[in-house]
Amino acid sequence: MNFASDNTYGAHPAVMAALADCNDGAVMGYGADPVTARAEAAIRDALEAPRAVVRFVATGTAANALVCGQLAPRYGRIYCHRDAHIETSECGAPEFFTGGAKLVTLPGEHGKLQPEALTDAMWRGAADGLNGGRNGLISITNASEWGTVYTPDEVSALARVAHDAGLPLHMDGARFANAVAALGCSAADVTWRAGVDALCFGGTKNGAMGAEAVVFFNPDLAEEFDYRRKQSGHVFSKQRFLAAQMLALVENGLWLELAGHANGLAARLAEGVAAAGGSLLAPVQSNAVFATIPPEAHARAKQAGAIYYLWPDKSAEGLDPVPIRLVTACDTSEADVEALIAVLAG
Amino acid sequence: MNFASDNTYGAHPAVMAALADCNDGAVMGYGADPVTARAEAAIRDALEAPRAVVRFVATGTAANALVCGQLAPRYGRIYCHRDAHIETSECGAPEFFTGGAKLVTLPGEHGKLQPEALTDAMWRGAADGLNGGRNGLISITNASEWGTVYTPDEVSALARVAHDAGLPLHMDGARFANAVAALGCSAADVTWRAGVDALCFGGTKNGAMGAEAVVFFNPDLAEEFDYRRKQSGHVFSKQRFLAAQMLALVENGLWLELAGHANGLAARLAEGVAAAGGSLLAPVQSNAVFATIPPEAHARAKQAGAIYYLWPDKSAEGLDPVPIRLVTACDTSEADVEALIAVLAG
Amino acid sequence: MNFASDNTYGAHPAVMAALADCNDGAVMGYGADPVTARAEAAIRDALEAPRAVVRFVATGTAANALVCGQLAPRYGRIYCHRDAHIETSECGAPEFFTGGAKLVTLPGEHGKLQPEALTDAMWRGAADGLNGGRNGLISITNASEWGTVYTPDEVSALARVAHDAGLPLHMDGARFANAVAALGCSAADVTWRAGVDALCFGGTKNGAMGAEAVVFFNPDLAEEFDYRRKQSGHVFSKQRFLAAQMLALVENGLWLELAGHANGLAARLAEGVAAAGGSLLAPVQSNAVFATIPPEAHARAKQAGAIYYLWPDKSAEGLDPVPIRLVTACDTSEADVEALIAVLAG
Amino acid sequence: MNFASDNTYGAHPAVMAALADCNDGAVMGYGADPVTARAEAAIRDALEAPRAVVRFVATGTAANALVCGQLAPRYGRIYCHRDAHIETSECGAPEFFTGGAKLVTLPGEHGKLQPEALTDAMWRGAADGLNGGRNGLISITNASEWGTVYTPDEVSALARVAHDAGLPLHMDGARFANAVAALGCSAADVTWRAGVDALCFGGTKNGAMGAEAVVFFNPDLAEEFDYRRKQSGHVFSKQRFLAAQMLALVENGLWLELAGHANGLAARLAEGVAAAGGSLLAPVQSNAVFATIPPEAHARAKQAGAIYYLWPDKSAEGLDPVPIRLVTACDTSEADVEALIAVLAG
Repeated sequence: MNFASDNTYGAHPAVMAALADCNDGAVMGYGADPVTARAEAAIRDALEAPRAVVRFVATGTAANALVCGQLAPRYGRIYCHRDAHIETSECGAPEFFTGGAKLVTLPGEHGKLQPEALTDAMWRGAADGLNGGRNGLISITNASEWGTVYTPDEVSALARVAHDAGLPLHMDGARFANAVAALGCSAADVTWRAGVDALCFGGTKNGAMGAEAVVFFNPDLAEEFDYRRKQSGHVFSKQRFLAAQMLALVENGLWLELAGHANGLAARLAEGVAAAGGSLLAPVQSNAVFATIPPEAHARAKQAGAIYYLWPDKSAEGLDPVPIRLVTACDTSEADVEALIAVLAG
Repeated sequence: MNFASDNTYGAHPAVMAALADCNDGAVMGYGADPVTARAEAAIRDALEAPRAVVRFVATGTAANALVCGQLAPRYGRIYCHRDAHIETSECGAPEFFTGGAKLVTLPGEHGKLQPEALTDAMWRGAADGLNGGRNGLISITNASEWGTVYTPDEVSALARVAHDAGLPLHMDGARFANAVAALGCSAADVTWRAGVDALCFGGTKNGAMGAEAVVFFNPDLAEEFDYRRKQSGHVFSKQRFLAAQMLALVENGLWLELAGHANGLAARLAEGVAAAGGSLLAPVQSNAVFATIPPEAHARAKQAGAIYYLWPDKSAEGLDPVPIRLVTACDTSEADVEALIAVLAG
Repeated sequence: MNFASDNTYGAHPAVMAALADCNDGAVMGYGADPVTARAEAAIRDALEAPRAVVRFVATGTAANALVCGQLAPRYGRIYCHRDAHIETSECGAPEFFTGGAKLVTLPGEHGKLQPEALTDAMWRGAADGLNGGRNGLISITNASEWGTVYTPDEVSALARVAHDAGLPLHMDGARFANAVAALGCSAADVTWRAGVDALCFGGTKNGAMGAEAVVFFNPDLAEEFDYRRKQSGHVFSKQRFLAAQMLALVENGLWLELAGHANGLAARLAEGVAAAGGSLLAPVQSNAVFATIPPEAHARAKQAGAIYYLWPDKSAEGLDPVPIRLVTACDTSEADVEALIAVLAG
Repeated sequence: MNFASDNTYGAHPAVMAALADCNDGAVMGYGADPVTARAEAAIRDALEAPRAVVRFVATGTAANALVCGQLAPRYGRIYCHRDAHIETSECGAPEFFTGGAKLVTLPGEHGKLQPEALTDAMWRGAADGLNGGRNGLISITNASEWGTVYTPDEVSALARVAHDAGLPLHMDGARFANAVAALGCSAADVTWRAGVDALCFGGTKNGAMGAEAVVFFNPDLAEEFDYRRKQSGHVFSKQRFLAAQMLALVENGLWLELAGHANGLAARLAEGVAAAGGSLLAPVQSNAVFATIPPEAHARAKQAGAIYYLWPDKSAEGLDPVPIRLVTACDTSEADVEALIAVLAG
């Protein structure tokens, strides 16, 4: 009963099989291999974006920070939600990769940026000439850090704010599969058709061993990106092993199947939490449940060996009710979910 | 009637005279000259800090950002007030000089950090392991960006929070003279005796042409600082001309005399604002008045050619009452102050 | 017959098996898992360095650049051979990770730094005060970029030069296994016993999919290294998959067995090159042969489908004799080697 | 008899007068003042470049490094002479301001880059794909670090190499006035007409207190430069005091008069060195003499109190003959020159 993170599970069998498959004979390194070409094409197909530039890296932090470095200047302001992963969980990687940009964080219900608040903040940022630096980039996370999902219309509204100011829009899609599975739309609808310029398409939280795709929908925005990837140590000599992971997930729709599985179990957990007298802190729209539960339910769960984090303060034992985060993943079993629900119910 | 900034005036006659004085004959460059040695000694004397390391630069942004780069790591969190100059007005210089540190901004009445809020924020910053980077530096501004002044006790309380966490405390003293003049204490009392580790001792806003001193009270904290200054282009070959400016201000107490003059005029302006039906937005403790005034008073002042900024939004014409900032400087004349007061009164 | 690089082959079966083995059930992420602990211990054992700090990353460039950033200041000078990988093949990664250090490159026969030339260069670098920055780090590659190997005595001599100046010594060990296998000494003898402070212990060129260990022999030198790794996007959430690769190679001596295999085949190739009328450009001491061969031999080899690079200029067709580089790897077959030798012989 | 550097003298009386002149009344800060506008116009006139963007900073290192950061990417290669100031004397400022670019240094007789050697090096740099980074910028110094001068034709030849590769050409003109005075051509002929894209037009070594102009001949290349200047702490609030210095030098041709004076004295020193049995190490074309002199002549000069550096190794006493550098400046007196000549002659 491990609901700590979608990082705690390993790699999906299909991913392992793909790694084994491509481990056969010598190929040219650094991406000049057929598996990389196929994986790039599969991503472009999944996004209906034939001109997109696709590159693979091993971690989500690398993907996000490389995009920030590519699209925002050293003296830029990057607008994001105050709970955004790039702000809270990347140890200053965006600042490092840009060489000094400033993250401007905004509140927003359930982890989502609001166009009005963004417009206001951007206006204030630009009001003082050189002093505050220049507005550089807008970054949103879909599915968000609170498990909620931006709809295509919501993305469009933010893209309009960004583009009206001449700024690009980045989507951190560490849980992009969960968002698309939840929305039931096409991946294109919630990305480039809605105005997203760069997408970090996550694999690691959805069954990969460690693989993410960076996608620039407009090839002009990808100019010289490979130098940045190389200079930061994120070009793999045996690149095929990154590509193969994404290929296994994307080629045949497995990514949406796995994400749908995790989403469904989170929805089921939400029911169980409610039945146990808990309350949701945010709508459950993807693979995470943020809720408060009665102390007794928490005590029973811990007693039974369930693993999950208190939230947002992992060390805040003793609260009543108890705020928790439950995350499901592609490998979470229905049995574990039902077991936890039963324990919570007491 | 120019109350726009303490940067709009030129250099004090004593500063000009000092520059002429030291322009005589050849000396070794890059600081190996007698004027630099005398100026360093004068600063150490003024601060009663015989072991302090003193270095001169030409701008306040350089001084602050160099200290941030010296004392906070690339992956550090620098805590400051949300209206701090290093956050709002340095175009990301602290981020650039550190190579990627993150400024964590906090609210605080009238521009001053509160120990409790700081403690809370530092605790949250450190709670999540590597994710958020490590706590790196505390920075306060004295006099603050709202014209208020930290007392020695208030500085001590913040220093205790910093030092308990193993962090240094930086004081941005662009208006340090105004703070000391207002407090009536010794410069030592409100700096190293209260726990300040590094001070940016401003000259430019107090009669210099362009000169600031960076002071490290503990020489160990200044290790290899000269390399940072050199690498950022802030070592002057004809260094004596920076040093002479600070020497002229500090050697004979001129710095406090000038600051006292500006402070006194600001206090007088505060009275005038009140008499004209205005309200102070912050206590007037140094050389700036933040207030709202009736639209008619504002109209009369503009009509009479008075120059000052609307605040904080310089372009927010049409508000009722009108929020304004009035700044006095060492060269502000009593006549101008009385003239403005008369105009405001109608 | 692919002798292009030791990166063109895939992963060794033992590595693949180790990945499968550790893909079982949920573990805590970011290195807090038992496989990581075992792999770190195995590296420490192999190096007879019980106090060493060991960390895993996925690429050699990341390993080297992170060490540079850890050990050299932003204003530092990093001394290395002019053909060093950190100079020629990392797209400025050391400069980026340090935030601006300068690589000072030196000649040296067959890819190896000479103590006298290093001493001279360090002296010149330090002679001009702040102007040239400060001496920061010495970096050597073992086995070198020309396939030669530093003996423990040679490493000691360079370490003495470094330590006398207060600088640390870094060993880029992308082909460390080949060096140790060639020397027949213990891994400790050619590293910490000889004065090496930080080692990049390569796995990728020796059968791993993509894994390198960064080793700091003195734990003090590793202080806060994890922040740097995180901030550059090189901390894997599913860290066990990096660790497992190194564990498979190191735990049971496989690393030396594989490297010995590659070294032996290179020695055999050297004989074949000589027999075909070629001349060695450097002694063949590890898994690479740098040589010139007659144009006819080159033509026959290309005709037969042999893959290798012209060297150092990959596009320099038409030279007589033809300068080439042949690299063997853990998966190179004796049959391929004998086939190439036969073709070269004509 | 101080021939150590053109930095050891102070400021020219005309510069001091200009500072006093502009210290009158309040003006808007940060460059929005009439003196700055006039000084920018004067520079554009002197260069016959009406569209040029002109900005002022206080040090030559700042000027050069800001241009490098503006024109070369983080992953770029900057080609310069191995004795270039940006390589030897700026403590890694170009690397810092670019965020990690690599300076590629080339030999070249008497301090001057040769087109063929540059072409070769650029070709090698680009030959290895991502590995070596991308070619980014060419930088030359005029007058050079060896006192020699590039003619318009020589600059054109290098510009052609740069532009054929799509790279901009930077001229470090710390001693630009000496070069133009020596050439007797127009300033335009040896800059933009010859293909220079960015010029650092020095004032400090030619009578300013501390002032340099950065000039971008093509305004597109200056885009967002002001943010870089601000973020590095090089925007002065009382900007007029930088501008006034350059204005005093440039407006009425004083810059060329002063440089001509210094050049003439250097030529006279060269005669004296020859008469004393010395030999020139480089042609004397501007305001520096690099020569060897007999030990007895050196001993007499030191005895007489003459100040100059041994070169290039300032501490290399005891050589025979003695390699020295003599620098003249705008304030060097004919009497001092003749006195040294007499002493050398014995």
